[in-house]
Amino acid sequence: MAPAQRITPRAQDFSEWYNDVVMHAELADYSPVRGCMVIRPHGYRIWELMQGALDEMFRATGHRNAYFPLFIPMSYLAKEAEHVEGFAKEVALVTHTRLKATGKPGAQAVTPDPASALEEPLVVRPTSETIIYAMFAKWIQSYRDLPLLLNQWCNIVRWELRTRLFLRTTEFLWQEGHTAHATEAEAEAEARQMLGVYRTFQYEWMAMPVLTGRKTESEKFAGAVRTYALEGLMQDNKALQAGTSHNLGQNFSKAFAVQYQTAAGGLEYVWSTSWGVSTRMIGGLVMTHSDDHGLVCPPRLAPVQVVIVPIWKSDAERSQVTEVGRRVKAELDGAGLRVELDLRDSVKPGAKYFEWEAKGVPLRLEIGPRDVAAGQVVAARRSGGKAPVRLDDLRAAVPRALDEIQAALLQAATARREAHSLRGATKQQFLEFLQAGGGFAYGGFCGSGACEAAIKEATNATVRVLPDPEFRSPEPPRTCVWCGEPSTVEAVWAQAY
Amino acid sequence: MAPAQRITPRAQDFSEWYNDVVMHAELADYSPVRGCMVIRPHGYRIWELMQGALDEMFRATGHRNAYFPLFIPMSYLAKEAEHVEGFAKEVALVTHTRLKATGKPGAQAVTPDPASALEEPLVVRPTSETIIYAMFAKWIQSYRDLPLLLNQWCNIVRWELRTRLFLRTTEFLWQEGHTAHATEAEAEAEARQMLGVYRTFQYEWMAMPVLTGRKTESEKFAGAVRTYALEGLMQDNKALQAGTSHNLGQNFSKAFAVQYQTAAGGLEYVWSTSWGVSTRMIGGLVMTHSDDHGLVCPPRLAPVQVVIVPIWKSDAERSQVTEVGRRVKAELDGAGLRVELDLRDSVKPGAKYFEWEAKGVPLRLEIGPRDVAAGQVVAARRSGGKAPVRLDDLRAAVPRALDEIQAALLQAATARREAHSLRGATKQQFLEFLQAGGGFAYGGFCGSGACEAAIKEATNATVRVLPDPEFRSPEPPRTCVWCGEPSTVEAVWAQAY
Repeated sequence: MAPAQRITPRAQDFSEWYNDVVMHAELADYSPVRGCMVIRPHGYRIWELMQGALDEMFRATGHRNAYFPLFIPMSYLAKEAEHVEGFAKEVALVTHTRLKATGKPGAQAVTPDPASALEEPLVVRPTSETIIYAMFAKWIQSYRDLPLLLNQWCNIVRWELRTRLFLRTTEFLWQEGHTAHATEAEAEAEARQMLGVYRTFQYEWMAMPVLTGRKTESEKFAGAVRTYALEGLMQDNKALQAGTSHNLGQNFSKAFAVQYQTAAGGLEYVWSTSWGVSTRMIGGLVMTHSDDHGLVCPPRLAPVQVVIVPIWKSDAERSQVTEVGRRVKAELDGAGLRVELDLRDSVKPGAKYFEWEAKGVPLRLEIGPRDVAAGQVVAARRSGGKAPVRLDDLRAAVPRALDEIQAALLQAATARREAHSLRGATKQQFLEFLQAGGGFAYGGFCGSGACEAAIKEATNATVRVLPDPEFRSPEPPRTCVWCGEPSTVEAVWAQAY
Repeated sequence: MAPAQRITPRAQDFSEWYNDVVMHAELADYSPVRGCMVIRPHGYRIWELMQGALDEMFRATGHRNAYFPLFIPMSYLAKEAEHVEGFAKEVALVTHTRLKATGKPGAQAVTPDPASALEEPLVVRPTSETIIYAMFAKWIQSYRDLPLLLNQWCNIVRWELRTRLFLRTTEFLWQEGHTAHATEAEAEAEARQMLGVYRTFQYEWMAMPVLTGRKTESEKFAGAVRTYALEGLMQDNKALQAGTSHNLGQNFSKAFAVQYQTAAGGLEYVWSTSWGVSTRMIGGLVMTHSDDHGLVCPPRLAPVQVVIVPIWKSDAERSQVTEVGRRVKAELDGAGLRVELDLRDSVKPGAKYFEWEAKGVPLRLEIGPRDVAAGQVVAARRSGGKAPVRLDDLRAAVPRALDEIQAALLQAATARREAHSLRGATKQQFLEFLQAGGGFAYGGFCGSGACEAAIKEATNATVRVLPDPEFRSPEPPRTCVWCGEPSTVEAVWAQAY
């Protein structure tokens, strides 16, 4: 059986398809620990490339990286009331610090030593606001210490009942920005700025055309004044929240007494923000672009951008195509590309094609004896299309092809998003669209929690965002799509991950 | 009081001096969680620079990064008998996954929900051999899957009673390499190779002239066949273990049934290694080079390599020196250096000098109005020496100065190490040297645990390494420095962190 056939088709079972793509591309694997995944080298490399791009953007906007403790005293979480309520049902708690022998064999050989019970249990960080504000209180004295612009790359634990590779796991990797400002306006500007950074990254690197906007009260972060989010539309027409940026107001600075002396000599609480994106984005990348042959990865984030597959029958041909393959690799390496030369002789070319397709390599260069004779290679794009390229044009043609592939992926995903967006619908159309899981449904919203709850009840869809101006409908809706009262704001509903 | 005076002199109290240097340089801070530190941006940047250099060396030797779960089932630890015994007294155990409200106010508002008790507690990883071998068993089938060469950058938790910033903390950051091989010889070669990689890094980047060699049975890693280590000599003449590389033989592959089919069709257990270095190296860097003015940082790992301090009195002077300062910064940025231009007008130049000295910036460029007129800057080295440099020579002179500083630090540290090494001593000299905490004491060793224990009892010193050939004394010792029986191997003793 050819490897590609082992991937469940999207049309048959999207969820199985997703798992198959992740497993075949060797992005991740299930671990023996419930809800925790292993990120395999191919998947981890995507994460490193994401980190590299984002980190540069964070630095360019004045942020510095730091590292705060994994453990948070249980009582800290309780200091901000909404915050503890938001996380109480999903925290891993450390209660003991030693094992003791039981005298039993095998798996039962050790048990937590009761004598090592902690006086106060520790929470494994589900997010770091509380521990970070405890430090901010120590570091911030005066307006001269502001703004304080920090970021942390770390692991996070939230005890999830139903987990999916990358999309929802008990442990995941992320970055969390935490900033403190002298004024409310600065904090708001920061939260908006970082939403913009994420948006640029998701469009330009991930080729994922997210919508941005504000969350409703019922969907905002536990402890935030305002939450902004980015929402992608997956190929099953469900929305994926791909990042959030929160204006925290003075909620945490009041809970942790983070005050500063103003230039005028007064004492004020700081205004703060937090913002994060996680390994969940890898799931979003997979579900935005991939197909029934496996992963499709935007070139800028592809661990391997180009694979060179020499094709030979005789030993003489082999040495000939191998030599050209090495030259091509050296030339493309020199152009700063990520290139693999697949010289395995235990695997046939067709099987190699399947394998590298499943791994999402954007461009394959085939080199057979006739290509060598013609001074060319055959360039096959993962997303379709095959054409010869002259050897002496490779250094220019390959980066150009990768740029075209990157742009085409964004274009295709944007077209798909628009094809699955509903605007100006009647209540009945709106209902049917969402019940069928049709995509992003735009509509007028009166702003009441009752309408929001009723729509969720009827369709299982939630307000993903109150969209930013550039995503709003040309004609603002006049009435709430549900109750018919005057609309206060346009909203976008969808079923979501 | 000038800031520099607040650092306790080394000669007065080395331990206080160390803490003062770390705190004044803003490398780290104490957190509210017992034994856990906060790594501040200046310290975290050193770690990122260390990571960057090491990661490139790991890749160049064929390793790939991956990520494994933070949590390890308690029973996994128990599968390798020595391993669980080694870590039983220092593991953080997760036992519950939800909080519930108590109805009490403040810090007592929540408590672990008894209904959320885990059937099997989870260990927060103190090292990842067990979880990684469980995955290896799944991934490795055939000799074609070998060698498997992985590395992981992550956080680690070991419940320590006495903690010191960077040197010994409950949580720390590290990398752990884990590799599986078809033969014993390959595993041994890998363990030695990675020791060599660490050594190159510690000499060439950290300017820390470590000794390398093998650990004795009593000092080896819990579960290893052989442990290799790198040992630096700190300025208080205590040794710091700065990294280890383990040949694990088949201990873990047998415990986790990691078998592979050989080319001949047989079934064999893999041979494996693990190796790691951690944020502890930052402590080693501090204690190797710093002085009573604060941090001294080797240029290759300095977050800021060059600070430019313009000096002015009038506004006219200010705009003049500022303009030259900006030009110099742009030029050095362009040369790929890490440069700060300190334009703060609320801080006097002398105070700026103190501050950047405490932060370990290797080179300071002072620009006063007379320097501008003369077309020069004054270059002051953190480790001493001040000289004018012509503006049009800066782009060449500054990198050269940084290289000289880097080389001089290694030279000075090597000279100090040699000045505090004792060779060919009598038992009495050996005893007095170690009791006084004199440094590295070389001596013949009969290999018996009894002598090792007796020396430790008498001097509090342990065998740091059985040194590699290039570190051995020219004249091999004939008798054990303690019992006088024939020596089987040369050893190096020291009091240690």
